[in-house]
Amino acid sequence: MRVYLDNAATTAMDQEVIEAIIPVMQNDFGNPSSIHSFGRSARSIIEKSRKQVANYINATPAEIFFTGGGTEADNMVLRNSIELGVNHIITSPTEHHAVIDTSQILEKKGEIKLSLVKHDSKGYVDLSSLEELLESNKDKKTLVSLMHANNEIGNKLSLKKVAELCKKYKAYFHSDTVQTMSHYEFDVRDLDVDFITCSAHKFHGPKGVGFLFINQNVQIKPIITGGAQERNMRAGTENIIGIVGLTKAMEVAYRDLAEHQNHIQGIKTYMIELLEKTIPSVSFNGDPKGDSLYTVLNVTFPNSEMDEMLLYNFDIEGIAVSGGSACSSGSNVGSHVLKSIGTDMTKPALRFSFSKYTTKKEIDYTIGVIKELFSIN
Amino acid sequence: MRVYLDNAATTAMDQEVIEAIIPVMQNDFGNPSSIHSFGRSARSIIEKSRKQVANYINATPAEIFFTGGGTEADNMVLRNSIELGVNHIITSPTEHHAVIDTSQILEKKGEIKLSLVKHDSKGYVDLSSLEELLESNKDKKTLVSLMHANNEIGNKLSLKKVAELCKKYKAYFHSDTVQTMSHYEFDVRDLDVDFITCSAHKFHGPKGVGFLFINQNVQIKPIITGGAQERNMRAGTENIIGIVGLTKAMEVAYRDLAEHQNHIQGIKTYMIELLEKTIPSVSFNGDPKGDSLYTVLNVTFPNSEMDEMLLYNFDIEGIAVSGGSACSSGSNVGSHVLKSIGTDMTKPALRFSFSKYTTKKEIDYTIGVIKELFSIN
Repeated sequence: MRVYLDNAATTAMDQEVIEAIIPVMQNDFGNPSSIHSFGRSARSIIEKSRKQVANYINATPAEIFFTGGGTEADNMVLRNSIELGVNHIITSPTEHHAVIDTSQILEKKGEIKLSLVKHDSKGYVDLSSLEELLESNKDKKTLVSLMHANNEIGNKLSLKKVAELCKKYKAYFHSDTVQTMSHYEFDVRDLDVDFITCSAHKFHGPKGVGFLFINQNVQIKPIITGGAQERNMRAGTENIIGIVGLTKAMEVAYRDLAEHQNHIQGIKTYMIELLEKTIPSVSFNGDPKGDSLYTVLNVTFPNSEMDEMLLYNFDIEGIAVSGGSACSSGSNVGSHVLKSIGTDMTKPALRFSFSKYTTKKEIDYTIGVIKELFSIN
Repeated sequence: MRVYLDNAATTAMDQEVIEAIIPVMQNDFGNPSSIHSFGRSARSIIEKSRKQVANYINATPAEIFFTGGGTEADNMVLRNSIELGVNHIITSPTEHHAVIDTSQILEKKGEIKLSLVKHDSKGYVDLSSLEELLESNKDKKTLVSLMHANNEIGNKLSLKKVAELCKKYKAYFHSDTVQTMSHYEFDVRDLDVDFITCSAHKFHGPKGVGFLFINQNVQIKPIITGGAQERNMRAGTENIIGIVGLTKAMEVAYRDLAEHQNHIQGIKTYMIELLEKTIPSVSFNGDPKGDSLYTVLNVTFPNSEMDEMLLYNFDIEGIAVSGGSACSSGSNVGSHVLKSIGTDMTKPALRFSFSKYTTKKEIDYTIGVIKELFSIN
């Protein structure tokens, strides 16, 4: 049996998405910048996609900028916030590398001062720490970059509360929403965020495509120049099959959202219960029974002889899980997120992440493997 | 009849490319950064692709960096040459916007001095002008960025001669090879260039993917950070279907290269002959019978009442041509390339560009339409 429980790293493409892409590959090859009929037809597909995507999050089409993925979108915001006058970035040590590493690069270059928020004992961002940082840096122009849900432990953040704090202190607010876009409803008008990011392959779309939402009240410059595509915000011929795939994946996700959420939350709860029953000394990182991403479950296992080999042992049994984000999945010990929230790093931790395709049967099989690995009867 | 003669803007995807992509969409969804079997299988596809691509141009796999397209690859070189100590860029006014606009942005920021080479009367880069610029800026660290073949007029450049000049003056050499990659043989060891760029959709691959070749002797930094992908040179989960499509498109192109070149050169020669016979006052921009890209033919037509409407009239008759590069195709008058080489801008100029799918029958139809439009019997 092969069981894929690493859906926070990436997801399988939906058959509907594949079927939306194939005819575009076959028929719609025009360059969207060309004014002839081949070009206009490609342009029309892209603008229709942009409108549809905008609708799902209550944005205007002019606020949606297609990119080569979530990481590029995050870079666009952070790197070009400098030209908005930003000289101070507040973020968290638990952010995805796209945000934390890029912020550190900007700090090293002397472009910004970098401040990091604190987290409470359950791994949530401490909003009073955020307000203190905003208050004590009132003389600076600040960009706050805090993810909507953590990709390793699943803890969520109230975008609304952070946006309000940012308004109060005239700071820009960017949220890496890569783990939550198309998994929750979004209303950017109500949230009043400045920037949010999306990566299609986190919700059964293709890899290599995403978008950046830029609030119409904000103007930033591109990081890739030399063409008028994406209204001068991202030069280069558009990845039309990627954009069509992203849009179809979003359509399917929002069409079936409630069902999707119920199914996956059910899987997560089921696995928590079985784990607690099977391994009394098991513990969970973050707050899986609280305000937590329904797709992610981060588990600390008891020590055994195979601490170092736990991931490999799962792999041998056909189960794909991760030791953190995909980027640091090579080791059990490396997670910068778990370290930041004070997890006991002497015990092995694994992230199980689910999708609409995950079944209870797969969880049963996984629990069976865990029993075998830990010699539990 | 619909006739597509805008293959320098983009090309139709090859059926073999589509058939290579479909099974990857269906089966290979792992994140190449994940260490489990799903991830390793995706990683293996990407590394196999990298090796194959490297072989075609006699590079090592470690010198190939997949990107979101040619424009991103050009930006990587130009923007990050600064960190190599470059404070002077020599390029040409006839370069693609990805190069010329980006160079101008760097100049405006005060990062570099910008020098532009001269062109001879046929539109070729004047190599003595290049040498003078290198000589008179010996005190600076120079990057030379000159395209291999011009996307609007087709004029080619001897990469070997430019590389030799660059070596002599210890300058870095980047060539935008977007129009020639997979249309000509490349041997980067023999050429001894530092950087060349590729865009898959120029040779029947998908849009939104390309690569940058970086000579192993040179080290540059990424413009998109926050992940170890592409050996830390381009963060973000890899566009696996794009990379597979690029590789298959290159495989098909190099497998059938001689046939491809002969067929398209035949089409171009045929159209030149028919145009000369049909419209005695016709003229060609660049040097189409000389050292010219076999896919491109840039034609200046006599004045008539429909000067402004010429492109639209072709479009109405089902023929897709362009008034320059796709980026500036909205107008007959806007080409920065034609202006730079001293073309008579009072007459309308159109670019016809061909592919392996172009037939003589399509050229006959096009000539028929031209006859009608210009009331030639």
